[in-house]
Amino acid sequence: MVANIDLNCDLGESYGDFKVGEDDKILPYITSANIACGYHAGDHNIMARTVQLAKKHNTSIGAHPSFPDLGGFGRREMKIAPEEIYRLVIYQIGALHAFARTEHIVLQHVKPHGALYNMAAKDYSVAEAIAEAVYHVDPNLVLFGLSGSELVRAGENRGLHTAHEVFADRTYQPDGSLTPRTADNAFIETPEEAAERILQLIEKKEVAAVDGTSLSLQADTVCVHGDNPKALNFVRQLHHLLMSKGVQVKALRCVTDGN
Amino acid sequence: MVANIDLNCDLGESYGDFKVGEDDKILPYITSANIACGYHAGDHNIMARTVQLAKKHNTSIGAHPSFPDLGGFGRREMKIAPEEIYRLVIYQIGALHAFARTEHIVLQHVKPHGALYNMAAKDYSVAEAIAEAVYHVDPNLVLFGLSGSELVRAGENRGLHTAHEVFADRTYQPDGSLTPRTADNAFIETPEEAAERILQLIEKKEVAAVDGTSLSLQADTVCVHGDNPKALNFVRQLHHLLMSKGVQVKALRCVTDGN
Amino acid sequence: MVANIDLNCDLGESYGDFKVGEDDKILPYITSANIACGYHAGDHNIMARTVQLAKKHNTSIGAHPSFPDLGGFGRREMKIAPEEIYRLVIYQIGALHAFARTEHIVLQHVKPHGALYNMAAKDYSVAEAIAEAVYHVDPNLVLFGLSGSELVRAGENRGLHTAHEVFADRTYQPDGSLTPRTADNAFIETPEEAAERILQLIEKKEVAAVDGTSLSLQADTVCVHGDNPKALNFVRQLHHLLMSKGVQVKALRCVTDGN
Amino acid sequence: MVANIDLNCDLGESYGDFKVGEDDKILPYITSANIACGYHAGDHNIMARTVQLAKKHNTSIGAHPSFPDLGGFGRREMKIAPEEIYRLVIYQIGALHAFARTEHIVLQHVKPHGALYNMAAKDYSVAEAIAEAVYHVDPNLVLFGLSGSELVRAGENRGLHTAHEVFADRTYQPDGSLTPRTADNAFIETPEEAAERILQLIEKKEVAAVDGTSLSLQADTVCVHGDNPKALNFVRQLHHLLMSKGVQVKALRCVTDGN
Repeated sequence: MVANIDLNCDLGESYGDFKVGEDDKILPYITSANIACGYHAGDHNIMARTVQLAKKHNTSIGAHPSFPDLGGFGRREMKIAPEEIYRLVIYQIGALHAFARTEHIVLQHVKPHGALYNMAAKDYSVAEAIAEAVYHVDPNLVLFGLSGSELVRAGENRGLHTAHEVFADRTYQPDGSLTPRTADNAFIETPEEAAERILQLIEKKEVAAVDGTSLSLQADTVCVHGDNPKALNFVRQLHHLLMSKGVQVKALRCVTDGN
Repeated sequence: MVANIDLNCDLGESYGDFKVGEDDKILPYITSANIACGYHAGDHNIMARTVQLAKKHNTSIGAHPSFPDLGGFGRREMKIAPEEIYRLVIYQIGALHAFARTEHIVLQHVKPHGALYNMAAKDYSVAEAIAEAVYHVDPNLVLFGLSGSELVRAGENRGLHTAHEVFADRTYQPDGSLTPRTADNAFIETPEEAAERILQLIEKKEVAAVDGTSLSLQADTVCVHGDNPKALNFVRQLHHLLMSKGVQVKALRCVTDGN
Repeated sequence: MVANIDLNCDLGESYGDFKVGEDDKILPYITSANIACGYHAGDHNIMARTVQLAKKHNTSIGAHPSFPDLGGFGRREMKIAPEEIYRLVIYQIGALHAFARTEHIVLQHVKPHGALYNMAAKDYSVAEAIAEAVYHVDPNLVLFGLSGSELVRAGENRGLHTAHEVFADRTYQPDGSLTPRTADNAFIETPEEAAERILQLIEKKEVAAVDGTSLSLQADTVCVHGDNPKALNFVRQLHHLLMSKGVQVKALRCVTDGN
Repeated sequence: MVANIDLNCDLGESYGDFKVGEDDKILPYITSANIACGYHAGDHNIMARTVQLAKKHNTSIGAHPSFPDLGGFGRREMKIAPEEIYRLVIYQIGALHAFARTEHIVLQHVKPHGALYNMAAKDYSVAEAIAEAVYHVDPNLVLFGLSGSELVRAGENRGLHTAHEVFADRTYQPDGSLTPRTADNAFIETPEEAAERILQLIEKKEVAAVDGTSLSLQADTVCVHGDNPKALNFVRQLHHLLMSKGVQVKALRCVTDGN
């Protein structure tokens, strides 16, 4: 079997003196970094450092735009019109783009954060606003969205490259949505089980939902977390297991622009 | 006599529901718009509209980066290290650049705002951080700074195109600094006197300081204001007077990128 | 006929250099000022000045707490848990309370702002969180809410003094809600008609809905606006008309605490 | 020997999802908590929880007001006029005061944070603005300032109770200022040495400066830190050592207001 998979992780989510995550430790095991752009985390200092760190590790980078909600880490739903969502995504991609430019690397992708990601998965008007923004800033950017979601659909309709995203450490409901974090069976506990599921997604494009039924899902990129020692260990082992099964863990695009 | 001069004005300094200025009324009389980038004013909505408005009027645009100080409108000095100034300038140029890109126009220039402008005029380490940021994001950008200031010097040292800026409605001290606003003789009251002084600056590269001594100053761009009816009228007449004396009022660069 | 009515108006809604409203001009005609507390408008400088200005005009003051949303002027719905709403109301009342204390005046009331006001009108869990916050900071405070709303009901259940609020310049739907601003018949155009409706509310506790049916509504306080010359004139005339009909325009509580 | 000393520590310096410190672990060993009020850290949720936590541990609390600088954690100097400093201190004390009120406890003190603390130590106009603010909100509050500083002097001139603060883990210059953190000999490494120095300060009101000369300093309260395991252990041992030498480690005021 010859197959590729991308492992993506949220990075650069510190803010000023407020430290979040261990970006330098997770970087060796991921292939795409979603970098916060100042609206839920990640100020200009953090962004500059994160772009440099990702470049050093040869990790592809993307913008991780959010609602303007530093106090809620972008996890609170806000009733914001699609026209404004279009603009706030442009602003944040632009800010990150400038840091990439100073390091002579290109942005690979855009993945919305938190409440914006969740709303875009279900609400086509939100999804469309994001896809339009990405397209108008740079039509070569890959749009990351929940596998099978409205966001991926909007991206495809707009003519963007898209990546269907699955979650390594989460279970799914029969309708394809993630099991809420509060449920007992929300999480996949071992990297072995996670690797097994990802392999099945790659080979058969299907995975078992919590009720045992088979769910058809495309998997172009896998979301992982590395903000605590346990999560970090999970990713390290998951990366090793996938490689040992012959899966190429690699980004969708290479890092540098050749200039 | 054949001569050109650029008239620049701060624009897009509203924020959310907080309205500032009458951008649409001043635009016909200026040739370069300095657009706020979210740190002292100007959110993503305002920036999008201001870029569109400037494009409609064929006015060249530039970034107007500031210290992060919405509450003080960027007018308060902050003790921020040059490394951070370098990054906050990059962030703000990048954000504006993305809006320009969606409208298929290019950025012409960068002019720091408020306290950052004033500190950069005198402190070479601040000036250098700004010049480096501009250079690394886009070496074609023109750096605007107070005529004869450290900022222009830093820009020239970095190999940037620079524009020496003079003020239409302000008087000068013998050392080339602006007379503080609180002084009785800080302002030029009539557009006729302002036009006269600008003509002299263009022709002879000199202007009278408040004590009558002659001051050598280069004038590539003239800063005007249009945030109240009186200021607006001042600019309208100034523009007319300069044109009638044979001065071409035009931007340093044209607006569109030809794409 | 002997009757009292309170006229309340949002005040202190400037922020830093961003000026909103003409607080000094509206103050002679209103009896209760709802003062912004920093979350949607109104920083520490504005709050200090507004409290002093209200005191000078002998106008009663209250806190006007909002969602944390400076960029949206507190008008955007945010999905915030009741426990957090409880705390953000406490924070904002406390901040205003300190300024009242330095001027030796007391707070009369609390009126939520924008989206928080609208959500509290319909959602009892939001209303209850606000009522609890008001009660725990100071049980003597009067809670202002839309007449007949969940907010007033929550305040009464908590044992607070409440004030049913009606709108001078707005029409009502048959269910007691305000006609959306976008509708043709959303506004009452003349002060004469507004005065007539308020008189009817005071005397008969009823007013005509847009479809002509009679609506039962209690009116303890009337919301007015004064942020533009037309609105200002409307209030001035409304105040005059009510007085001339024998209505006492006065606050629910007097301003000073007798110290 | 019979002597008292207060151990104070900055608390509640998280913000939203950004976690700082281990407040619950340090609380058993300190007697006064300086609680962030939203300007450099500490939102309404954090403040509510910190006040409850301090109450549970019977620890006295005070406001820890800062410049408005979340991005710089209040450590950057800002050129803000004394009139505005007066107001920003009032705002922050008021916000915390409301949370104390809901828990039926009183505020003991006010200790400015970061750059505001340092500027107030040297600049009497800044110090005076803070002292005035404290006095006008509540003249019973104790003002904490660097031992021998302008801040303590301004507090005394205003008629406030003051507390001279010394640092357990820092060395002093011959002029009474703290040795800059960047210097090799800036820190006291062991709790034994720290305890020894504090005992000397209590008994003889003097301590050795880095050059060996004896420095006269009053010590009413000792600043400690607990934001990492090593610091936490330092405080725990320091507390034990002081108690074992017969020093009463206790707050300046008791926590509850007797209601």
